Amino acid sequence: MVKRDVYLSDRPLEEAQADYIQLLQQAGAINPGRPELIEVEKAAGRITAGPVYAKVSSPHYNASAMDGVAVRAVDTFGASENCPKRLKMGELVRMVDTGDPLPPGCDSVIMIEDIHFVAEDEFEITSAASPWQHVRVIGEDVVATEMIIPGNHRLRPVDLGGILAGGVTEIYVYPRPRVALLPTGSELVQPGAGLKEGDIIEYNTRVFAALVDEWGGLPIRYDITVDDYGLLKERLKSALDEADVVLINAGSSAGREDYTAELIAEMGEVFTHGVAIKPGKPVILGLVNGKPVVGVPGYPVSAVLGMELFVKPVVYRKIGSVPPARPLADCVMSRKIVSPMGVEEFVRVKLGRVGDKFIATPISRGAGVIMSMIRADGMLRVPRLSEGYNPGDVAPVELMRSLEEVRETTVVIGSHDMALDVLANYLRKIHPGASLSSAHVGSLGGLSALKRGEAHCAGTHLLDEETGDYNVSYIKRLLPGRSMVLLNLVYREQGFIVAKGNPKGITGVRDLIRPDVGYVNRQRGAGTRILLDYKLKEAGMDPGLISGYQREEYTHMAVAAAVASGSADAGMGIRAAAKALDLDFVGVVEERYDLCIPGEFRDLPYITRLLEVMELPEFREEVRSLGGYDLRDCGKIVWESE
Amino acid sequence: MVKRDVYLSDRPLEEAQADYIQLLQQAGAINPGRPELIEVEKAAGRITAGPVYAKVSSPHYNASAMDGVAVRAVDTFGASENCPKRLKMGELVRMVDTGDPLPPGCDSVIMIEDIHFVAEDEFEITSAASPWQHVRVIGEDVVATEMIIPGNHRLRPVDLGGILAGGVTEIYVYPRPRVALLPTGSELVQPGAGLKEGDIIEYNTRVFAALVDEWGGLPIRYDITVDDYGLLKERLKSALDEADVVLINAGSSAGREDYTAELIAEMGEVFTHGVAIKPGKPVILGLVNGKPVVGVPGYPVSAVLGMELFVKPVVYRKIGSVPPARPLADCVMSRKIVSPMGVEEFVRVKLGRVGDKFIATPISRGAGVIMSMIRADGMLRVPRLSEGYNPGDVAPVELMRSLEEVRETTVVIGSHDMALDVLANYLRKIHPGASLSSAHVGSLGGLSALKRGEAHCAGTHLLDEETGDYNVSYIKRLLPGRSMVLLNLVYREQGFIVAKGNPKGITGVRDLIRPDVGYVNRQRGAGTRILLDYKLKEAGMDPGLISGYQREEYTHMAVAAAVASGSADAGMGIRAAAKALDLDFVGVVEERYDLCIPGEFRDLPYITRLLEVMELPEFREEVRSLGGYDLRDCGKIVWESE
Repeated sequence: MVKRDVYLSDRPLEEAQADYIQLLQQAGAINPGRPELIEVEKAAGRITAGPVYAKVSSPHYNASAMDGVAVRAVDTFGASENCPKRLKMGELVRMVDTGDPLPPGCDSVIMIEDIHFVAEDEFEITSAASPWQHVRVIGEDVVATEMIIPGNHRLRPVDLGGILAGGVTEIYVYPRPRVALLPTGSELVQPGAGLKEGDIIEYNTRVFAALVDEWGGLPIRYDITVDDYGLLKERLKSALDEADVVLINAGSSAGREDYTAELIAEMGEVFTHGVAIKPGKPVILGLVNGKPVVGVPGYPVSAVLGMELFVKPVVYRKIGSVPPARPLADCVMSRKIVSPMGVEEFVRVKLGRVGDKFIATPISRGAGVIMSMIRADGMLRVPRLSEGYNPGDVAPVELMRSLEEVRETTVVIGSHDMALDVLANYLRKIHPGASLSSAHVGSLGGLSALKRGEAHCAGTHLLDEETGDYNVSYIKRLLPGRSMVLLNLVYREQGFIVAKGNPKGITGVRDLIRPDVGYVNRQRGAGTRILLDYKLKEAGMDPGLISGYQREEYTHMAVAAAVASGSADAGMGIRAAAKALDLDFVGVVEERYDLCIPGEFRDLPYITRLLEVMELPEFREEVRSLGGYDLRDCGKIVWESE
Repeated sequence: MVKRDVYLSDRPLEEAQADYIQLLQQAGAINPGRPELIEVEKAAGRITAGPVYAKVSSPHYNASAMDGVAVRAVDTFGASENCPKRLKMGELVRMVDTGDPLPPGCDSVIMIEDIHFVAEDEFEITSAASPWQHVRVIGEDVVATEMIIPGNHRLRPVDLGGILAGGVTEIYVYPRPRVALLPTGSELVQPGAGLKEGDIIEYNTRVFAALVDEWGGLPIRYDITVDDYGLLKERLKSALDEADVVLINAGSSAGREDYTAELIAEMGEVFTHGVAIKPGKPVILGLVNGKPVVGVPGYPVSAVLGMELFVKPVVYRKIGSVPPARPLADCVMSRKIVSPMGVEEFVRVKLGRVGDKFIATPISRGAGVIMSMIRADGMLRVPRLSEGYNPGDVAPVELMRSLEEVRETTVVIGSHDMALDVLANYLRKIHPGASLSSAHVGSLGGLSALKRGEAHCAGTHLLDEETGDYNVSYIKRLLPGRSMVLLNLVYREQGFIVAKGNPKGITGVRDLIRPDVGYVNRQRGAGTRILLDYKLKEAGMDPGLISGYQREEYTHMAVAAAVASGSADAGMGIRAAAKALDLDFVGVVEERYDLCIPGEFRDLPYITRLLEVMELPEFREEVRSLGGYDLRDCGKIVWESE
C-alpha cells in the first residue's frame, strides 16, 4: 500500500493564524516591498508608504469666499439699517467672484445679496463688514508642510483631492504584493474545455485572483500543474522567483497524490499542516526562500475559506495594513445546528428580517458546494468549544450582504418551485434594491417556518386526501387562529421524471416496485412526497417494496439530476424539471402551488412587490416556457382565514 | 450692472432626488445600456444583465467525496464491530481519491480512515456502507439549466466560481455608464502647474473620476473649459455625443460667469436649480438630448456631496442597481451643533469610542475645506426641520470609517501640537489597525472634553501664573476628585511667528500695540492665548490696544499661515510652525506640553500603544527635526493625582 499520513494536525484556528503571522514577521517575509512613486490621480485604493505633506497652501492666496464686493472693512464701519452707508466702485471697492484673489488693500468681502445698487457703480450697505469676513485666508484648507494623509492609509477618492490641493502630484505607495496562484491536479481542466468523467473545471484560482485583486494584491495565475512532484517543484521555484506570496491549490490533503506539504517541507519549512476548522482543515502554512507559501484544499468552499483566513492577512500585512473585520449582526437561529466539538465550523446562512428579528437559516454545509457561498447572506462561526445552537438561540453572524439589503429581502421558506427563481429575477429587475431569498425545506417545513416567525411566506402544495383541496386544511391544523392568506402562484404538472425515451417503460406508481426500477424520493414533509404516499395508498401499495424510497433529495432539480445521472430510474417531480434536463415525463396530476402569507405581511412591500411582478406579462411568459405550468390564478387570493 | 438670478430655488433634498430619478426614468434616460458579452474571469464587480443559467451540472459525474474505497453498498451489509467484513480489491472494490468518478457498478465510498488493511489488496470494515454515502452525485452543487446568479447582481469573486462551475465562460453584463466630467472655470489650472494668485488647482474631477470608477461607471475627464458660453456649449455637445451622463463642475451658482444653468436650459431642460442642502445648494439637475446633465458647485465639499447625492443614484440606476446605503451608528454629540431651519445640513464629524459610547465631534463646516472630508469619520445629517443638536443628544451618523476602526482609535482632544501628527503616523506604522484622531479645541477645551467623557486624553500646556508650573492646578480645578495622570510629550519653544527677516522688528509683547503691527490671535481657552494674556498682564498692557487681538485661529499652523499670507504681522505660536513655513521666530518661553489621561484609560491600548511609539528613536528624531522641541521627558509620567 501507498503510505499516507492520514492524520493531519488539529491546531486551533486563532493559534495557527497568530503563529503564522508571527513566524513570517520574524522571517521578514511580510514586510511591505520597496515603495513605488505613482501619480496621485491613479492612486485610489493604494496604501501610502509614508505621510504625505502639503507643498503649497490651499488656498495659496487670500480668496473671496463669496460672489460680492471686496472692501476695506474700516471703510464700512458705521453702516446700519438706520444709517446706510454708500460705497463707490474703485481701487478698494471691487466686484469679486468666489475664488477671486482679494484685491490689494482689501480685507473683507460683502455678499452680493447684502448689496443694494443705487447707481451703475455705487451701492448701499446697511451693516458694517468685519475684517476678514467671507475671505478664505491662505491655508484655510491645507497649510504648506502640513501632513495631509498619514502613512499606511488606503487612499479614498476624496484623499486624492486633498493631496492635489496640497500641490502634490506624485506619492509613494506600497507595491501591490504579487500573489502566485498555482492550480495543481491531473483532474483539472480549463473552463470551456469539453468535459469527460473525472474532469474538474479549474475555477478556484479565478475566484482567488478576484479576491487578491479586491484585497489590493496583484494576482498571477499559473497554468495547471498535473500531479507530478518534479513538475510541481519546478513550478513552485519559478513562482517564488516571480511572486511575493505563493498559493498552491490543492494537493494539500493526505491523498495518494497530495504532494504540497512534502514539497514545501523539502524546499523550506511547514509550520502547520491541518487546522481545526470545518470546512478547510487540510491547510498548509509554510515558508520557502523567505516567502509565504500556503496550500489550500481543493473543495471550493474550503478553498475560499483558506484564502480568507490565511492568505488575506498576509496580503494586507504586505501593504502595511490589516484586513477589515466583516460586520457582525446578532441573529436568531431558525433551526438546530449541530457542530462537532474541537472544530470551529463555518456555517453559511441565509438571513431574513421577519418582524423585528434577523433570522439565520443554515444552508448546505458541503465543502464542495460553492453555491452555498453564493447563496449565503452571512457566515456563522460555531466556536471550537461549542456543539452548536438550538432554534431560537441568538449568535453573531458575519455579514456577507449588508443588513440594508437583508431588510429588503422577501424570505420564502417551503416547497421549491422553479417559478420562484423567475419571480426573484424579475423582482430585482423592477426593484433593484429588493430581493427574494428562498430556502427549500418542503411544504410542511415552510408552514412550520411561518409558525416560528421565520419567513414572510411559504411555498406550499399540500394535498388534502379527504377533500382533494390544497393547503387549507394543513394551515388550519398547523396555524390555528392565525390570520392567513393563500395566494396562488401556479398550477403545475406533477408526475414521474424518467430517462429520455422512458427505457424502463414506467407508466404509473405500480411500476415503482419492479425490481429493475430504482427510485429517488423527496424528503419527508415535501408536498411531492405526500402526493406519492397518497398515490401509493390509493393503489394499496407498501412503500417498503420500492427500492430507493429511502433516498431523499430536497428539490425537483436534484431528483431530475439523479435520473439524468442514471443513479435512479424514476422520481416524482414537476414537468419543468424534466424538461430542463431533457428527460421524459409521465404526468400524474395537476396540482396547485400557493404562497401562504401571514395576514400581517400581506400589505408590506415584501409581498406587494411580488404581486407587482406576478402581473408582468414577461414573467408569466417565462414561467410558461418552463413547461407544465398554468398561470390562470397567478396573483389571486384563493383562500383567506376568517 | 450684469443681471443675475441670485435667488436659487430651495427644493427639499428628498423631493429633488426622487423627482429627478422619476423624470429621467420617464425620459428613458437611465435605462441600462445594451448588454455586453464578457469573459467571466473579468467580470468581478460588474452587474449581470440577466440571470445566468448553468450549462453543465457540477459535478457532472458521480464523484467520490472522500479519499477511500468505492464499493457496492450491498456488499458491505452485515459488517459490524462484532462481525467485521473483509473485502478484496477488484472491479467493484476500488481505491478512489476525492473527485474520482465512481467506478461503474459502485454506489458508495468508504473513507480511508474507516478501513483496516489486512493484506496488500484486502481490508476489513466494521460497519456497513449506506448507498450513495460519500458520493457527490451529479448536480450536487449546480444542476444544468438551474439559475446560478439572478440578473441585476453585482458579481463577487465567489460568483465567478459558481458560474464557471456551471460550464459558462462568457456572460452578459450591463455596460459601465460613461460619465463625462467637465471642469469649467477660467481660474482652474492643472495639478503640477506653477501657481499664481487666483489660480485654483483642478482636482475635483480627479476625485469624481475615482468615485465614478468605484460606483461601476467609466469616467471620462475632459480638459478645463474657460468661462466662455460658446466654448462650454461646444464641450457639452461633444460630451453628450461620447457619454451617457454629463457632469459640469462648476459654474452652477449665480455668479457673473456661471453659465451652466443657462446652457442646460438652452439645450435641454433644467428640472431643479438649487436644493435646500448645506453645503452644496447651487446644484443643477437637467436633461439634454435624453441624457442626464448635472451641474455641481465648485467648492470641494459641495462638489463631492453633489456627486454622492445626485450623480451616484444615476450611475447605479444605469447599471440596474441602487446605491448601497452607508451604515449608520447612533452617536452622542460632544458639543452644540446649530444648523439653519429649512436646510438639510451635512456636518462632517470625528468619531471616537470612549467608555461605552460613540462620541461625535463636528469638524470644520466650510464648503471649501476638503480636509474636513478627509478627516471625517462620519457624516451627520441635520434634518431640514431641525435647528441642530445639544451636547449629549444622540443622533444617527453615516459612517465613513467602520466602527471597528473607530473602536481602535485613540481620541485626543485639546491643544494642537505637530508632534501629535508624527505620533499618529508612527502609530499606524507599528499598529496598522489602530489610529489616532486629534481635534483642536485648545487646552481648556481638551480638559472639558475629558470631563464630559469624550476623549481618551487631552493635549494641554496651561501655565499657572502663580506657580509657574503647567497643567496641574487646572486639572485639580476642572476635574476635582478624578484619577488623572500627566504624561509629558514634549517641551517646546513658544514665541512670536513673524515674516521672514522680521521686517516689523518685533522683539516682544510691547511691539504688539504699535499701530503698524497687525496681530493674529489664538482662540479663547488655548494655552497659547493664556500665555499671551499672562505676558500682557506681566507687562501691564491692555489687550484692547492690539489690532487683531479679536482675530482667532485654531492651530499654530493657521497662525503661521496668516503671517505668511501677509494678513498679519505677528502671532504667538510654536517655533516648528514658523520653521515649517520658512518664517522667522522670536522666542518667548519654553513650555511643557503634556497629555492628560484619565486613570481608567491609562493601561488600555489607546494609551499603551502611544507609549510604545514614544519610545521609538525614529519618532523622537522626526519630532526634533521639526525645530524647537526637547524630548527629555517624553513618555514620562510628570504628575499623577492622589
